[in-house]
This record gives sequence, structure tokens and C-alpha cells, in this order.
Amino acid sequence: MAIDSGHGHGSGATALIGVDWGSTHLRVHAFDARGGVIATRQSARGMATLSGAEDFAAALDELLSVDLDDGNAPILLAGMVGARSGWQEAPYASLPADAAVLAAALQPLRFKHRRAAIVPGVSGPSDGFDDVMRGEETQALGVPPGTRRVVAPGTHSKWLRLEAGAVVGFSTYPTGELYSLLLERSLLGRGLPAGAWSERGFLNGLDTARERPDWLHQLFGVRARNVRNAAPVEELPAFLSGLLVGYECLGANTASAPQIEVAIVGGAQLAATYALALRRFGIAHYIIEGDTAFCHGLWRVAQAAGYV
Amino acid sequence: MAIDSGHGHGSGATALIGVDWGSTHLRVHAFDARGGVIATRQSARGMATLSGAEDFAAALDELLSVDLDDGNAPILLAGMVGARSGWQEAPYASLPADAAVLAAALQPLRFKHRRAAIVPGVSGPSDGFDDVMRGEETQALGVPPGTRRVVAPGTHSKWLRLEAGAVVGFSTYPTGELYSLLLERSLLGRGLPAGAWSERGFLNGLDTARERPDWLHQLFGVRARNVRNAAPVEELPAFLSGLLVGYECLGANTASAPQIEVAIVGGAQLAATYALALRRFGIAHYIIEGDTAFCHGLWRVAQAAGYV
Repeated sequence: MAIDSGHGHGSGATALIGVDWGSTHLRVHAFDARGGVIATRQSARGMATLSGAEDFAAALDELLSVDLDDGNAPILLAGMVGARSGWQEAPYASLPADAAVLAAALQPLRFKHRRAAIVPGVSGPSDGFDDVMRGEETQALGVPPGTRRVVAPGTHSKWLRLEAGAVVGFSTYPTGELYSLLLERSLLGRGLPAGAWSERGFLNGLDTARERPDWLHQLFGVRARNVRNAAPVEELPAFLSGLLVGYECLGANTASAPQIEVAIVGGAQLAATYALALRRFGIAHYIIEGDTAFCHGLWRVAQAAGYV
Repeated sequence: MAIDSGHGHGSGATALIGVDWGSTHLRVHAFDARGGVIATRQSARGMATLSGAEDFAAALDELLSVDLDDGNAPILLAGMVGARSGWQEAPYASLPADAAVLAAALQPLRFKHRRAAIVPGVSGPSDGFDDVMRGEETQALGVPPGTRRVVAPGTHSKWLRLEAGAVVGFSTYPTGELYSLLLERSLLGRGLPAGAWSERGFLNGLDTARERPDWLHQLFGVRARNVRNAAPVEELPAFLSGLLVGYECLGANTASAPQIEVAIVGGAQLAATYALALRRFGIAHYIIEGDTAFCHGLWRVAQAAGYV
């Protein structure tokens, strides 16, 4: 399945419109009848920039009105668009969640007399509380058969367990959000070059996370190293990143969640960063491009729902 | 030793001016010849609000010019006033640090032809890096003889080890800063009532920290509980506080730092919160008022330096 971001003119051949609508992005894919992606359009009108159904409808129409389809293809949407503050709330589905479960729980949506629905997010028991996700369940359905463990890294990283094509458990780690907060808004990040990257700093952070479980104290080590000139300041943002990604990967791969091969689902840069961490910890892994996984998973839901 | 915040008129009897100058507060104490505090004045002109020596001198003069002394008592200052961005940088002293070590490393300060100096902060090896502090070393010298373990809770909590009246080790936990960041600026804190307190929520957070080491995932539990209405929203700020204070106290009291009796040095409310946590974890403790400890410790440094 190829992602074509060019100007495809497949309006007549479009069998499905698939919408990946997160907090900060909106991507619309046109699928042909075999599940191939004919064209993709995107805008920055993520959920966080919109308020109210009319806003959401206008943002979607803006991308559709180019030439993605003839106005009749069914539309499936997934991601934060189904949150309480999204277009329309789609109640969470339960675990285990496979394509059939999600298809049976689609939330119908009114949009220009077209057949349209939101794929629900999933809620389920994690380590002491019911965790929640929206969007990653669809990505997880798009990984190769036989995959048992998925990480979708990001602002709120998700670690998922799969069995026989169904999501059976998952845990969230707010790694990306904590990294940004600490770097941009805390005393720990003061004086650090925000855009700097250093593989050496990142690896030092990973090793520190592995060797030193007293995490809250180790976070202060970023500040102390800066004040004492104990590390090049250019290495410290990546050191902080290594600490957080390290604690995340180690926490998600303990004895209770044994180290099985992990599919990293995400954009190239973030996926490579997590691959570096998993390699450092000796955890087998492979990378699957995030858009590809999303489109493949959404197509499976569309099939299960009889949309295509 | 009593703290008198009223209008003491002991100018003739003042043997020492002691200054507690942190990031957000400035407190000036007048001591009599036996180390008793005659009067205390304070302002909000902490280090973070000041820039340049003239600013600092003016802020101090503003409090002194009332009637704290006759203009001749020596002045000892401690805290962030000796940081790189303070009044004048006082290089860190090394461990072990007792009153004699700090007295020998006083940083002389020019102020109106008076005898004045800054008590240096301390730097020393912690769990993998050289940690730093300014002010807590002075408080720690003011706890009762025989105390071996001190916590000074706050924005950046310090856990100190003492032997024979000297600080021999310490570790910083940026607990208060992380709490504020997460509550006020993160998605985890969105929709939570910032001022709410709940002992039940706090205890739940402590127990969760003890039972579940996967901390980064547990932080997301604050958000998930809110989204799923799995806990009263009024309990969630205290739950977050319990998580962070719990991880701090457990991290600072592991096998490698055995559970010996802890002196909690701080203001009444924060000290009570930490006492609740230590009691929950079965760690013996007692509370010492923070200003009292500071004044007592500073007096010991003044004696060792021949200032009094």
C-alpha cells in the first residue's frame, strides 16, 4: 500500500475516504476499491484548533473539495475527532478490540448526507487504572499479522499488546509532553539549546535510566550537570530525552510485560529514536511507517463494517 | 530560639544580621549576642525578581533601614543570593560540609562598608552526578545534634545525610516544580481544580507510588481517571501530589539509603504533607520549623567565622 501525496485524479475510483484526525493534524486519504491509497491531503486543522461541529465539517470539506472523490464515497474517521471535545463523542470500545469490534461500535456522523462514522477509541484496564486511546487502536490493526507488541511513540506514547489481530491491552506514557514541559518551561531546561540533538547525550540518558531507578532525582541531574558544567550544554536536551524514553521503554518491558519483538509505528525520525533506545536495551524491534499502518488498519475496519 | 516578627527595638543589642535569600523570598533576621532572634522582616524581593548588585543592595537596605540594627552588625547571607545570577557568585563548598568548612569559604561582599559575606552553597557527588544546593546546607546545620537524615521539601526538595554535625551527602528531587508544571501546564492537569486538597487523593497517590514503579505510565493515570470519571476530580490534584511525593520519599529511602529517622525541615503545611507520606511508608520522622533551623544553622556558621 503506497501513500501518494501528489495530485491524484482518482475521484471516480475512490471507494473510501479515510480521515486521520489528531490533536494537531488532519490527514485525509482516498482509497481505491482494493484498499490502495490513491491520494492524501492534509492540513494543520487538528482537533485542538477547532470548536463545534460546523468547524470540523468545514475543515474536512476544505480538503475533500479538491478532487479526492465524487462526493459519494463513505467516510471513516479516527483519532481525537471522536473525543468529548472533538466533532462528536464516540464512546470508548472495550478490550479485546479487533476490526469487527470497532466496526460494530462505529459512531454515525452527519456530514452532507454522506455515509460517515467515527471509529471509537478504546478504554481498558492497565496498571491500576483504565487507560484510554484514540487513533492508535486503528494503527495497531494495520501492522503485519503475527505482531504481538506495538509502540506508537509521541506526545502520549502508547504500548499495545496484540493477540490474533486484536488489541488486548495497552499503556500510555506521556513522554513527549513531559519532555517539552521540562525543556521549555522548567528550571531544569533553563539555558539549554532547545533544538540541539546529540546521540551521545541520548545514549547517556538511556544508560542512566537503566542504571538508576531513582527517576525524580535523575531528572534534576539535567540541571546539576548544566550548573556544574559537567556535560556539554548541547548534549543535555538529548540526555533528558534519553532519560525519559529510557524510563518509558524499560517500564513497558519489564518481567510482567516480557521482552517480545516490538513494532515501532510512527514517523521516521521518532521511530529511529525509539529504535536506538530499544537496540540499546537489547529489545528486538522493527519499524512500520505510521501513516501506512493507519491506512491499513482503517481499511480493515471499513471492510468489517461493510463500508467497502 | 524564638522568631519574633513584630516590631522589636533591639538595634543596640543586635550582634548579627542573618539573611535568608531564596528565589522568591527575602527574610532578614536580627540576632542578639546569644544567638536569639530579636526581630525578623521580610519582603517578596527574591533573587528571581532582582538583577545586578545595585538591585540586591537596595532590596536588603530597604529591610535594614527600618530599625533592625545600628548599622554596624556584621551580615551573613545564605541561599540563592550566592548563585551565578544572584548578588555575587559564591563558589560551591565541597562535602563533608560543617560550620567550619562553610565559615572558611565565606564569600566577602561589599555593602556599605559593613562586614558582610555570603555562605557558599555545597556541591557533591550524588547518584551519578554532582548535585548542588544553596541554603539547605545552612538549615541542615541548625537541626538538633544527632540528626542523621534531613529532608527540606519544596520546589526542589533536598534529602541530606549528616554525620557528626557535617553534611556528608545529599540529593535533589524537583518534586514541587514538576507538580506545578503538570497541574498548570500539561494535558494531565487540564480540567483539574488547582486549589483542591484531598487527603484521600493524596494517600491513594502514595499507595500507587509504592505499588507501581512504572512512574511515567502512572502519571498518565491522572488524566485517564479524569477522562473516565474514575475518581472525583477534586481528589486528582492531591492524587498527583501523592504520586510525586511518594516516588520522592521512596526513592530517597531505598536499601542503599536505609530508613533512618528523618527530620522534616520546612513550613508547617508542607512539613505536615511530608509527615503524612513518611508515616504512610513507616519511616520515623519529626518536624523542625524551617526558619528556626535556618537561623540556628546560620548562627553556627557566624560563630565558626568569628563574626559573633
